[in-house]
Amino acid sequence: LPEPGGQCVALYPDKPIYDVPGIPVCTGRELAAQLLAQARPFVPADGSTLHLNQQVMSLAVDDAHPLGKHRFHLKSGAGTEFMARCVIVSAGAGAFVHKALAIPGLDTAQAPANLHHQLLNANIAAPWAGQHLVVAGGGDEALQTVLDLANANITQGPARLTLLHRRDQFQAEASLEAAVRGLISSGQVQLVLGVPQACELDTSGTQPVLRALTLSTADGAAPLMLDHLLVRLGMSPKLGPLSEWGLALERKQVSVNPSTFESSVPGIYAVGDINTYPGKKRLLLCGFHEATLAAHAASLALHPETPQHLLYTTTSPLLHQRLGLI
Amino acid sequence: LPEPGGQCVALYPDKPIYDVPGIPVCTGRELAAQLLAQARPFVPADGSTLHLNQQVMSLAVDDAHPLGKHRFHLKSGAGTEFMARCVIVSAGAGAFVHKALAIPGLDTAQAPANLHHQLLNANIAAPWAGQHLVVAGGGDEALQTVLDLANANITQGPARLTLLHRRDQFQAEASLEAAVRGLISSGQVQLVLGVPQACELDTSGTQPVLRALTLSTADGAAPLMLDHLLVRLGMSPKLGPLSEWGLALERKQVSVNPSTFESSVPGIYAVGDINTYPGKKRLLLCGFHEATLAAHAASLALHPETPQHLLYTTTSPLLHQRLGLI
Repeated sequence: LPEPGGQCVALYPDKPIYDVPGIPVCTGRELAAQLLAQARPFVPADGSTLHLNQQVMSLAVDDAHPLGKHRFHLKSGAGTEFMARCVIVSAGAGAFVHKALAIPGLDTAQAPANLHHQLLNANIAAPWAGQHLVVAGGGDEALQTVLDLANANITQGPARLTLLHRRDQFQAEASLEAAVRGLISSGQVQLVLGVPQACELDTSGTQPVLRALTLSTADGAAPLMLDHLLVRLGMSPKLGPLSEWGLALERKQVSVNPSTFESSVPGIYAVGDINTYPGKKRLLLCGFHEATLAAHAASLALHPETPQHLLYTTTSPLLHQRLGLI
Repeated sequence: LPEPGGQCVALYPDKPIYDVPGIPVCTGRELAAQLLAQARPFVPADGSTLHLNQQVMSLAVDDAHPLGKHRFHLKSGAGTEFMARCVIVSAGAGAFVHKALAIPGLDTAQAPANLHHQLLNANIAAPWAGQHLVVAGGGDEALQTVLDLANANITQGPARLTLLHRRDQFQAEASLEAAVRGLISSGQVQLVLGVPQACELDTSGTQPVLRALTLSTADGAAPLMLDHLLVRLGMSPKLGPLSEWGLALERKQVSVNPSTFESSVPGIYAVGDINTYPGKKRLLLCGFHEATLAAHAASLALHPETPQHLLYTTTSPLLHQRLGLI
């Protein structure tokens, strides 16, 4: 994802959370912001340690190096490579990927040039004027895209906008739904109800181009001609390449030792929703505990000769120095 | 203790804490208040479930009752009795007791009538006028007592006040120390430096009365005559009766299973600083995890037939109802 925060930011940024101990209520976005603020004193000021918007594609164990040396070799989809002495996996429910329309022709290796799954609202500034844009979806993400495109019409010249959803009911924030309903009532946006069953592709060029969707509607099959299809069905997590890293898994989760949160591969730890152990509960507060114990265990594994003292922020001068208090 | 909050409130109420996840900084007292506010929707409005200012003296297992029935019988020092289906021990480092002067005659079963270890500043309104009061200690608690007594002199008539400490250096908040130093400079309080080694008791009555302390000072042994001795050496935790409850202990801590935080006695759980298990760290955030998993495990043990679904406060209508949101 393009920003830290995981599910809190990607799935429920504006929903109130009531079960983080000591915080009677906060939203997912607020919690992520507070955690980042709290971590800041311990992160280099240039932010060089945060690598965003890329998926770790491979993790290889280099047997030439013992534990605590550069034993792990990671590569991301963006081409970044890392040599690591230990790895803490906090992959949540997996990597977030945009949900796709599951119809033949759209799920091929070579996607049509005018089919768009971009992250969030990137590329919204594309020159759409004069074209027919179909936004598929009925949740916050689809409605926000429709609203953004309607606003872009003012500056970029009018495009024809269609919102495609399976039924006349949305799962979106009330204010967002009201705004989009207004656009539909005023005729600025056309609402089409139907479920895509097939598509018509033009494959004469080097890359296929989507010409139309065939919809199943209340009145039978109906074609929907279009120039661009923006699929906005929300995101869902997929385990992805992690399943190939040689970690013992149990029902798609990484089995860990609850004393250290170490996986079956020494030096690789797993914390949060991605792990499993007897008694596991997928709660934020459990992730905090797991990350803390994993950090202590990793520190001990990396520095086996150094005594590991538990320091308290109420009393430790060393921690006060790191926090910038003295 | 007379209020909930444990070590946070008793040991570091005003110290900033930086390591509760999601809260960049708060004091011990603030954290306890936030946690209580968060728990409030789940506690009966009349507060009937909070029993304060008493120590659990005994915990007996009634073998006539199976697990999940009224198997546990608890009695507190205040005479309160409880029949319980399960017990979660969160006794921290033990029960907080006032540190005593360790000299012969003061540590007997029958304490002198004029020796005072009262909790905090209770009984400060006693009629002290005309008497010689000796306050022993050099920390916040001792200095606050001296200050309170000096203020009481105004309304209750003057008493002679002595602060007894082993050296001319205090461990107290700067403003409190400044106020007491002012009282010493102006002669309202006499500072005596010395370490009590013995005491002189009048045992002619039904209860012994302390007449004097024998001090070891820089100039040798010296007597300190007094009418009342207020021992204000702070509090320290003692494991106390818990060690007699039949729970498996390891270095004065309750051994627990880290999947359930259940002790060696089925139905009795232990969370927070009182427990131990492989990897244990004595951190607030670990206590939150432990308490949560113990609550889930206890719920399952009490209702083995009922499916235990993990509910999220972001989405669960049942939790929203309990939180008073709908």
